[in-house]
Amino acid sequence: MSSTGIGYAASGSHPDKDSTTPKPTLGTSQGTTPSAAANKQEAALDPNNPYARLYIPQNAPTGADAQIPPDAWTHAYGKPSHNAAFPVPASAPAWIRNGVKWNFPEARAWPLSDNEPYGAKIYGIREALPVQTQFYGNALGVAFAKGVVYAESDDMFAYAINAQTGKLIWRTSPVGNYLMGNPVVVKKLVYLSAGSVSFNFANVVAFKNDPSKAARGLDISYNGVYAVSRKTGKLKWYFATRGEAMPTPAYDNGKLFITTGTGNAYAIDAETGKQVWKNHLGGIANMSSPAVYKGHVFVAMSVKPYLYSLDAKTGKVAWKGTIPKAANTGMGDVSPVVSDGVVVQDAVSDVRTTNGKGTMNTTVRAWNAKTGKVLWTDKMGRGPKVPAFKGGVPMVHDGVVYVGSPVTSDYVALNLKTGKQLWRWNVPNAGPAGAARGAPTYYKGTLYVSTGPSVYALDPKTGKEIHSVHVGGRFGIVSPAIIGGTVFLGNSWDWVNALPLHDINPNYKG
Amino acid sequence: MSSTGIGYAASGSHPDKDSTTPKPTLGTSQGTTPSAAANKQEAALDPNNPYARLYIPQNAPTGADAQIPPDAWTHAYGKPSHNAAFPVPASAPAWIRNGVKWNFPEARAWPLSDNEPYGAKIYGIREALPVQTQFYGNALGVAFAKGVVYAESDDMFAYAINAQTGKLIWRTSPVGNYLMGNPVVVKKLVYLSAGSVSFNFANVVAFKNDPSKAARGLDISYNGVYAVSRKTGKLKWYFATRGEAMPTPAYDNGKLFITTGTGNAYAIDAETGKQVWKNHLGGIANMSSPAVYKGHVFVAMSVKPYLYSLDAKTGKVAWKGTIPKAANTGMGDVSPVVSDGVVVQDAVSDVRTTNGKGTMNTTVRAWNAKTGKVLWTDKMGRGPKVPAFKGGVPMVHDGVVYVGSPVTSDYVALNLKTGKQLWRWNVPNAGPAGAARGAPTYYKGTLYVSTGPSVYALDPKTGKEIHSVHVGGRFGIVSPAIIGGTVFLGNSWDWVNALPLHDINPNYKG
Repeated sequence: MSSTGIGYAASGSHPDKDSTTPKPTLGTSQGTTPSAAANKQEAALDPNNPYARLYIPQNAPTGADAQIPPDAWTHAYGKPSHNAAFPVPASAPAWIRNGVKWNFPEARAWPLSDNEPYGAKIYGIREALPVQTQFYGNALGVAFAKGVVYAESDDMFAYAINAQTGKLIWRTSPVGNYLMGNPVVVKKLVYLSAGSVSFNFANVVAFKNDPSKAARGLDISYNGVYAVSRKTGKLKWYFATRGEAMPTPAYDNGKLFITTGTGNAYAIDAETGKQVWKNHLGGIANMSSPAVYKGHVFVAMSVKPYLYSLDAKTGKVAWKGTIPKAANTGMGDVSPVVSDGVVVQDAVSDVRTTNGKGTMNTTVRAWNAKTGKVLWTDKMGRGPKVPAFKGGVPMVHDGVVYVGSPVTSDYVALNLKTGKQLWRWNVPNAGPAGAARGAPTYYKGTLYVSTGPSVYALDPKTGKEIHSVHVGGRFGIVSPAIIGGTVFLGNSWDWVNALPLHDINPNYKG
Repeated sequence: MSSTGIGYAASGSHPDKDSTTPKPTLGTSQGTTPSAAANKQEAALDPNNPYARLYIPQNAPTGADAQIPPDAWTHAYGKPSHNAAFPVPASAPAWIRNGVKWNFPEARAWPLSDNEPYGAKIYGIREALPVQTQFYGNALGVAFAKGVVYAESDDMFAYAINAQTGKLIWRTSPVGNYLMGNPVVVKKLVYLSAGSVSFNFANVVAFKNDPSKAARGLDISYNGVYAVSRKTGKLKWYFATRGEAMPTPAYDNGKLFITTGTGNAYAIDAETGKQVWKNHLGGIANMSSPAVYKGHVFVAMSVKPYLYSLDAKTGKVAWKGTIPKAANTGMGDVSPVVSDGVVVQDAVSDVRTTNGKGTMNTTVRAWNAKTGKVLWTDKMGRGPKVPAFKGGVPMVHDGVVYVGSPVTSDYVALNLKTGKQLWRWNVPNAGPAGAARGAPTYYKGTLYVSTGPSVYALDPKTGKEIHSVHVGGRFGIVSPAIIGGTVFLGNSWDWVNALPLHDINPNYKG
């Protein structure tokens, strides 16, 4: 079942001898590019060094395999709608249409057969599951472009994997920090975002004195966006941020948009890494990734809980909204979704303590994307407080919002225009940390959900479960990336997995 | 000047084929040993994996080289007195008596020729220096035993290096966490301590509501003590702690003593990894490592700033003391020193804001080790607030305390019994983060200090500088480990360095 695809020791020498000096594009202002430094680091790495970039050209796809759509991966969860589904033409290679199966172990791969995470005995399962997601494996899912699967891991490496064979094309660890995002792939570059959930002591004290002054990730390792060659993984530039850059950047029209733990939003020239604009919004971006739609960037922040619509050209605030009684980390966890002129965001909310036990709700709200007018507000239901990443990432397809909540471990379907609830499905065996964080994926009449150790196929009209497959490990905030007849998924156990849709959905007509 | 010593790729195959199943000793209570899990991880690692343990037996010392004292390394800074000096007999090999010179690049080695740390452009030098110490390279210095140098790094690896050749014997990364300590080496095992300076968000909120309730490192990766084979680096057992275990354990009489970010002190059976006792003292241990002396363990905590004398057999508090007006992280940063019946600790203290600028003092206090009676208190002087690790580690030799303070970047010599100041020496070019954190080492009539990028030789009677050598990088909280005619030092740039004493002190008679 495993295919390591690492030719390193087998080949007897390091396959990447390229030592040409990179030509970094230096940034000009605070939030920009110490690429000279970053490249010095790469140069300093002995090729036999464990963190040295590894590039195995013979594992890259060729011919028709290298033309499989999509050509680019521009947002977390693939699109502003978060529907990570990409059909392929009938002329695409049979393997991608029929579905392929492999499991690629990343650098700290924990046995998929082990139901318990690494820290289960010391933290207990409830806490150990999110720790495994935040500090061990893949927090979000993977990206796909032209026959290659790209993954970022909290093992501090990023990977390019041949989508057909599951063999490693390159891996790189340009920074000693956690890579918490979904790689963004555009033209010749792959964009990685670095940061962790941590605060240093000065910011613990700052939060005590004035919560709006605390910055996540400040002075905690090296945060920012790393642009590496799509072909080789070689570092091209590094856009450093003071606070964590856990959110996945969004790409649109030559620019990357990113938010940080210091409450900043940035636009960066995607080719050069130079800052285009910066807007200090305040608050803290946790894992909430921007979505770009019709010239506006939608970003959300915690602590001061706001959703912002920013002009993509200038960064100026067009409007801002909030979710009533949003909990501390509520709005900064979840990525807003935008589709059909509507932006939807959810947040855990209305935290109460009853008989010494904390409970919370999850509130979903929709706004007119252009005007910021609130269209509807829905509550998903009260339940016990849940650990880290407390919301569910919404997805929109064909006028319906699909969104989960770990508070109740339910997914619901809501009418995008009215908020009317169409159905509710409870994740089986959700476990003590709660399930239902990842965005569902709609593909050819079926809804696919990855949560806990399993992938589910649901009827999108009724929410009824059709079938499920146990993969093992934990899908943290992972949405199934469906390309042709194959689902690609990263997980918290530090594996990247490929599964045929046929396995998950016996009704699938490939 | 560099000698990588890594035979991995050169040998064409992974030199360690040993895949026998380890026999973990499982612990029995909360603070104990999920070694089965830890060993499962090792088993899961492909030998071609970047984090796979690497063992190169042919690089280990043999014969007389493998008999060079000390045989063990029991405390941070080598001894309860923090004087990391170990003479060798005249019969010891010539190379260790005359001094050896090499620079071993660890996994993220940053060029020694680069004066600026990785994050200089984004954080500024003042902040980037401690970030490099806390998240990049070696925070403390190295350990030495029987011809082998042992190092822990924030690059997440531990290393065993041949002291003569500078070649790698083994490296291991049993956990995806920062290794902030000084390896402890006793009998057949090396003890590593894992943890970071970070807080998660729940503890940021906890600190706001009640500072004494916050825990450092809780739910931040995997904390605790890792025991690995001295010969091969193979993991033997893992004593997990909920909070960070940044302090270096102290070894005495078959037991390890460690304190954590959750305010616990533990005694652990050094052979089996089983908990002997636990005492919840409260507060937070940052980098303050225990010292054992005449059946008592001296440990210090922050936030609730106390020095404790604990009965080594039971963990019960014999007495506790404090430092007046100790700043938040003051007492938990610095390791108490004990010698000649006196225990000495310092802490930054009396923080004031004048004209919008923060200033602080450093207070040194001495107690009767047996009774806890305060013997004397001295103030080292006021200066601007300094970033992380705010004190200086004291060392005692022959009735004199030698201690630095980054607040003034001075080292002072104080009479151990009276506190009378004998001299004061200001570190040249201390830089914006301040210098003088590491403990000095007294050896054959000379005092050696490693701070900033340099190693200094001082006259211990007058504090006058004799000579200095520029190594490069930054010595964070590093004391020179002197064995025979050689000084061994780790640094924040992720290098381990060996230097002949002759180079640092032209007057040295080897």
